[in-house]
Amino acid sequence: MSTSNHVIAVIGATGQLGAAIARRLVLAGTKVIVGSRDAGRAQEAAKALASETGKEVAADANAAAAAAADVVIVTVPYAAQRATLTEIAGVVSGKIVIDTTVPLMPPKVMRVQLPEEGSAAVAAQKILGPSVRLVSAFHNVPAHKLATDEKIACDVLVFGDERAARDVAIDVVSRCGLRGLHGGALCNSAAAEALTSVLIFINKTYSSDGAGIEITGTLNERPTA
Amino acid sequence: MSTSNHVIAVIGATGQLGAAIARRLVLAGTKVIVGSRDAGRAQEAAKALASETGKEVAADANAAAAAAADVVIVTVPYAAQRATLTEIAGVVSGKIVIDTTVPLMPPKVMRVQLPEEGSAAVAAQKILGPSVRLVSAFHNVPAHKLATDEKIACDVLVFGDERAARDVAIDVVSRCGLRGLHGGALCNSAAAEALTSVLIFINKTYSSDGAGIEITGTLNERPTA
Repeated sequence: MSTSNHVIAVIGATGQLGAAIARRLVLAGTKVIVGSRDAGRAQEAAKALASETGKEVAADANAAAAAAADVVIVTVPYAAQRATLTEIAGVVSGKIVIDTTVPLMPPKVMRVQLPEEGSAAVAAQKILGPSVRLVSAFHNVPAHKLATDEKIACDVLVFGDERAARDVAIDVVSRCGLRGLHGGALCNSAAAEALTSVLIFINKTYSSDGAGIEITGTLNERPTA
Repeated sequence: MSTSNHVIAVIGATGQLGAAIARRLVLAGTKVIVGSRDAGRAQEAAKALASETGKEVAADANAAAAAAADVVIVTVPYAAQRATLTEIAGVVSGKIVIDTTVPLMPPKVMRVQLPEEGSAAVAAQKILGPSVRLVSAFHNVPAHKLATDEKIACDVLVFGDERAARDVAIDVVSRCGLRGLHGGALCNSAAAEALTSVLIFINKTYSSDGAGIEITGTLNERPTA
C-alpha cells in the first residue's frame, strides 16, 4: 500500500532515531511533520532538515503534529513512551501509529527485560486504546546508520494485529530504504524488542559498528497471509 | 574452545532437530551418544546413523547418555522439556547442557508466547539447578535444512551466563556447519525463542521453505567481552 499521499508525523523527531527516519522520509519525497514535546525545538529540527534537503518540512508540538498526520511514528526512549503516547492518545483514534519503542532499561541495556505486558508494543496498544491501528517496527536498525545515506543491511520486522496497517508500515519502511517484513501479531513484537539487547551485546562483544539482522531463506515477494 | 575430545550426548535424538544435530556432529568426527526416552529407539537411531555415516555412534536411554557425556544437548519439544530435564537432572551437575527448547504452544505456534520465567532457557536452569552450566542455542535453524548437507544461511545465537560454556556451545555449532555467536546472558534467550514464532509466521506469509536469521554488520572475529 503506497503512502505517497500520506502525511507522516514523526513524534520525537529531535532524537537520533526520529531525526534519521524523518530525514529519510523527507528525502524520499514524503510529506513529514516533525513533532517534539516543545514546538520550538520541532521548528528548529524542521528548519535544519528543510535546509539540508531543500524540501518543505512541517513542524509542531507532538499532539498537534499527530493530529495533522495520517500516519504517526513514535520514536521516543522507553522511559518516555507512556508520557508521549498519553500526550497523543486523544488525536490518533483510527490512525495508524507505528511505535518503535524498545524496552531498554539502563544501565542493563544488554539484558532482555521485557515489560509485564510482554512487549512495549502491546503496552502501547493498552495506553492508546483499541481504536488505534497500532504497528511496531524499526527496533533493530542502528539509528546512527539510518542517519546516513548508506545502504543498511538490516531487515525491519513489522508487527501488528491488522494486516493492512502492517502494509502501510512496510511502505514507510521501504521509503526509508529498508526491507520491511510482516512479523505477525502485535505480541510478536517481543522478538524484535528483545533482539535489540542481543544486538547491543553483539556490538560490544564483537566490536561491531552496528549489528543488524537479515531474514534469510527464499521469501515470496507477494505475501499471501 | 575445541570440543574435539568431548563426548556429546544428544537427548531427544529421535526427533527431527536432535537427529539432524547428531548427524552433523557425527559427520564432523565428534563422539556422539544419541539418547532417547527408550534405549531401544536410541539404539535404532544410532544404528541407522552409523550405517549412513560409516562412523561409530553410541546410544542409550536419556539419563545414561547424559551421564556418559561431557556436553549434553537437549532437543525435545517444549511440552517434553520439563520431564526430560528432570530425567537427566541428577547426572548433569557441573556439565555443559545446551538447551534448544523453543516455547511453541500449539496450535498458536505463530504467536510469541514466552513462559512466565521469561524464556524456556531460564526455566531449564531452574529445573536443572545452578550447578549446571546451561547454555541455549539452535532456536532459529530450520531442522529440515539441518538434516541435509546443505550450507544453511542462518546464524545460531548462543546464550548463557558463563562465557566459557558459551564458547563450547559455539564450537559445537561450528561442528554443525553454522556460525555461532555470543548472544549474552541466559535471559537473552527470550529473543531467539520468540523469533522462532516470527520465522514460522514469515514462512507461512512469504511461502518460504525455511526462513532463518543472519546477524549483519562487521563483527570482529575474536570476541572481546
